[in-house]
Amino acid sequence: MSGNWMVEEFFHKTFSMGFKIKEYLHSEQSKFQKIDVVETDSVGKLLLLDGKTMVSDKDEFVYHEVVSHIPYMVSRNCKKVLIIGGGDGGVVREFVKHPDIERIDLVEIDERVIEVSKIYFPDCTSGLSDKRVRVLPEDGFAFIKRAKAEYDIIVVDSTDPVDFASGLFTDEFYADVYNALTEDGIMMNQTENPFLDEFGIKNIYNNMRKVFPIVSSFNAPMLIYPGVYWTFGFSSKKYRATDLNPAKMGHMHSLQRSLKWYNMDWHKGTFAISNFHKQMIGQE
Amino acid sequence: MSGNWMVEEFFHKTFSMGFKIKEYLHSEQSKFQKIDVVETDSVGKLLLLDGKTMVSDKDEFVYHEVVSHIPYMVSRNCKKVLIIGGGDGGVVREFVKHPDIERIDLVEIDERVIEVSKIYFPDCTSGLSDKRVRVLPEDGFAFIKRAKAEYDIIVVDSTDPVDFASGLFTDEFYADVYNALTEDGIMMNQTENPFLDEFGIKNIYNNMRKVFPIVSSFNAPMLIYPGVYWTFGFSSKKYRATDLNPAKMGHMHSLQRSLKWYNMDWHKGTFAISNFHKQMIGQE
Repeated sequence: MSGNWMVEEFFHKTFSMGFKIKEYLHSEQSKFQKIDVVETDSVGKLLLLDGKTMVSDKDEFVYHEVVSHIPYMVSRNCKKVLIIGGGDGGVVREFVKHPDIERIDLVEIDERVIEVSKIYFPDCTSGLSDKRVRVLPEDGFAFIKRAKAEYDIIVVDSTDPVDFASGLFTDEFYADVYNALTEDGIMMNQTENPFLDEFGIKNIYNNMRKVFPIVSSFNAPMLIYPGVYWTFGFSSKKYRATDLNPAKMGHMHSLQRSLKWYNMDWHKGTFAISNFHKQMIGQE
Repeated sequence: MSGNWMVEEFFHKTFSMGFKIKEYLHSEQSKFQKIDVVETDSVGKLLLLDGKTMVSDKDEFVYHEVVSHIPYMVSRNCKKVLIIGGGDGGVVREFVKHPDIERIDLVEIDERVIEVSKIYFPDCTSGLSDKRVRVLPEDGFAFIKRAKAEYDIIVVDSTDPVDFASGLFTDEFYADVYNALTEDGIMMNQTENPFLDEFGIKNIYNNMRKVFPIVSSFNAPMLIYPGVYWTFGFSSKKYRATDLNPAKMGHMHSLQRSLKWYNMDWHKGTFAISNFHKQMIGQE
């Protein structure tokens, strides 16, 4: 390999992905982690936290659209949204497209991620200036314990289940999220790649099922994540993942031109998962 | 990276994927190409043709099940199937699961791929001994020109559109396939990764649309292919991709335990593609 590359090794260091680096744009050690931004040819600007690929210009729209518009379209009366993590702002940018949402709280422990993203990913952070958005530089674990029956949607925008983020995949945490949700609330989270099952996806889903009566899984590609085939969880108190709210369909049709990934047919189709995907999450 | 790795660079050498090699099992130069088999930790045995990843133990079932069971379930009266390429035998293995199919022709120009696969991928080649299977060591281009209104399903199991395989993505070739199909025939082909659009996917789909009245696209992950998110084409003379044949559903239900990826709900869902996927293939 000629030139400089950002190469990550996964799955017990037996599988790798690499991005050729055009330019090093930013590097700092915040109070919580190392934050780097590099310019690449294949995926544009790339944000790294502790050396792990987090966000790229090329594919950020996929993650941000799916974790926001799916629960929004299922929810009946969505007034308050909470995002835990997600300091790049991309999830907020998607939720502010819905005028009936009154409050969006972003709880990001590391303010430096937000500030760096404002410089290098201004499109992602463009929603943060919306009047309905509150940016709270706090620990998500402590925050969620205080919230009670308050949020209609909670998005856990987390890294892999290692170090302090591993707590975001336990049934104790999911119970705190459950209690922070309104009576028909929905939790969305990323649940890793089942082909490279380093973190025990079945266990993650079992933890979700201990707490939520309705747990579904879908996939959407994340080009910069290990092995690309990415699974996400939809955990709900009342409504099923494919039970779209008819009252919102007109609004969603009018939004279609501004969305790069999400449409309602895709939403319904992606929950029809393969036998492999079912087996890996322990679904009958 | 410590130890030996099989690293491939894609997208104008700006994006890479690598597999750590445990053991070199086989290497030869056939009349047509270099054939290698390596043992890896992440994906098991891995077949390489001219240094490009073709088949792995870990994920071969995905490709082989989707290109076979999708057209089979849409076809009304499927007696004869043609597979162009696919010397590893995986597609044949799937088609022989359907007792109503009377003849499966495998046209693979390189007999050595078949022989090497028999040694290292015996599960893939297990269907080749079925009495209905005819293995024809011929040039697919010449073969298809001779066939007229003969096959109900044709699977073009090709490599990337480079060198001699580039001819498998032209409207001239698709017209030959069209003529070789019966009046309600279906062509299946792999159509690359739209995130790393090295080969002009829109052009491939335009060529298919010049010839077939019904052209749809879906995706299934190929862990060992560049960028994993893989698209496939479904080109049909009469029946739509999601118009499953009700007469075959009982049989498919009974097969479910033996299938690792395919189920009928997934089949219908995967054709509900994202805005991005639509845009990349030029679909309204």
